[in-house]
Amino acid sequence: MDNKPILFTSLSPALLHLYDLNNSIVVIIDVLRATSTIATALHNGAKSVIPVDSVRRCIELGKQIEGITAGERDGKIAEGLKHGNSPLEYSREFIEGKTLVLTTTNGTRLLQMALDRGAQEIVTGSFTNLSVICDHLMIMKQNVILACAAWKDRINMEDSLFAGAVINEVGRYFNINCDSSHIAASMYEKAKNDLFGFMKKNDASHYHRLMGFGLENDLRYCLTPDLANVLPQYDNGKLIIR
Amino acid sequence: MDNKPILFTSLSPALLHLYDLNNSIVVIIDVLRATSTIATALHNGAKSVIPVDSVRRCIELGKQIEGITAGERDGKIAEGLKHGNSPLEYSREFIEGKTLVLTTTNGTRLLQMALDRGAQEIVTGSFTNLSVICDHLMIMKQNVILACAAWKDRINMEDSLFAGAVINEVGRYFNINCDSSHIAASMYEKAKNDLFGFMKKNDASHYHRLMGFGLENDLRYCLTPDLANVLPQYDNGKLIIR
Repeated sequence: MDNKPILFTSLSPALLHLYDLNNSIVVIIDVLRATSTIATALHNGAKSVIPVDSVRRCIELGKQIEGITAGERDGKIAEGLKHGNSPLEYSREFIEGKTLVLTTTNGTRLLQMALDRGAQEIVTGSFTNLSVICDHLMIMKQNVILACAAWKDRINMEDSLFAGAVINEVGRYFNINCDSSHIAASMYEKAKNDLFGFMKKNDASHYHRLMGFGLENDLRYCLTPDLANVLPQYDNGKLIIR
Repeated sequence: MDNKPILFTSLSPALLHLYDLNNSIVVIIDVLRATSTIATALHNGAKSVIPVDSVRRCIELGKQIEGITAGERDGKIAEGLKHGNSPLEYSREFIEGKTLVLTTTNGTRLLQMALDRGAQEIVTGSFTNLSVICDHLMIMKQNVILACAAWKDRINMEDSLFAGAVINEVGRYFNINCDSSHIAASMYEKAKNDLFGFMKKNDASHYHRLMGFGLENDLRYCLTPDLANVLPQYDNGKLIIR
């Protein structure tokens, strides 16, 4: 046995209980679009992003702290909120110095699960901050769980691809006895030269969903590495850059 | 909408609850080695294969019906049983006309789950009976769930590859709005010319496990299409060929 830390990939929140989070860094992955939006808002100067699980809670908290409320349901800005889930809404001009209160379903729920299960550290990952996530994992030398938010517990392609991208970059620094990781890495290897084309060719469900809403620009943005290369870390209810 | 039936892939028993089994054919997939052994025993003339979930139950039932008891724990024939999990043990000379009582953990549990959840029809699939499974699904024109047995709920490579092989063959006859299916099919596409080499190169956990037990021949057999091309169907506690 060498001394490498261990890396696992949980392709759905319904599989998270299989892994020991206690001494691990958990990377929450919700590429389309929560974790891409979180990285973008923080990259563009947001003070923090507060993830909440319901529209009601988003409205309440938004009032209380004078934050920007954001969230969508079925592809539209949810009633009572001011902004949507698109990372392209969160330019520096708009978000700098403000707090974003963001309601998402899959990502927020997964983050709460990781907290409840005692994760040592929680960060959020997406292609927009791929390099900084990889650098962080290499530097920390801790066990890692790549935790895909999926879609109502159904495995999705883009979160799996991002897990694969991370493994492709840092896998050699970890012991990986985890077929989910190898499956993700093998798929990423095949997809990496054209992630958008791969999602289209392989009929990814979110490709169709977002294209159906006219959101090709969102899709292309969220599949491009390092456009918002910051490390969102969870700290006491908020995602911040330390 | 066209009239194609629907196909989903459940990559782990922990995801099976996400899919509606009521009007579906469920293909139980436990490539290494339960469903390969089941196909082989039936192909070589076994009267039926009775899957049971414990060694104790296997011994009891074996006595009761004068069946061949088989099962392994940690790579060895389980105490009190007569035979192992290797498909290569079940030659025609040995198994013809007999009943095989087989205890496996992951596969048997999944089969029971499919029953409990009201599957319309249950068959078992493996590379050894790939073509007959594909033919059956094409002919039946019913909804299909490809249900991977995985390993203690952890997704594994070989069951996912088999799901991909089926989709590669019959996918065009189904509506597939299921990223797990597309992930499996994409991986199979990459692996298909050398499944053994792919399992080795991508560090599949069962590749290492079985090679560690000296079972390369088992591995190669279980990854070869159509060596035992029969359709095991579940009927009242038994797997039989109709």
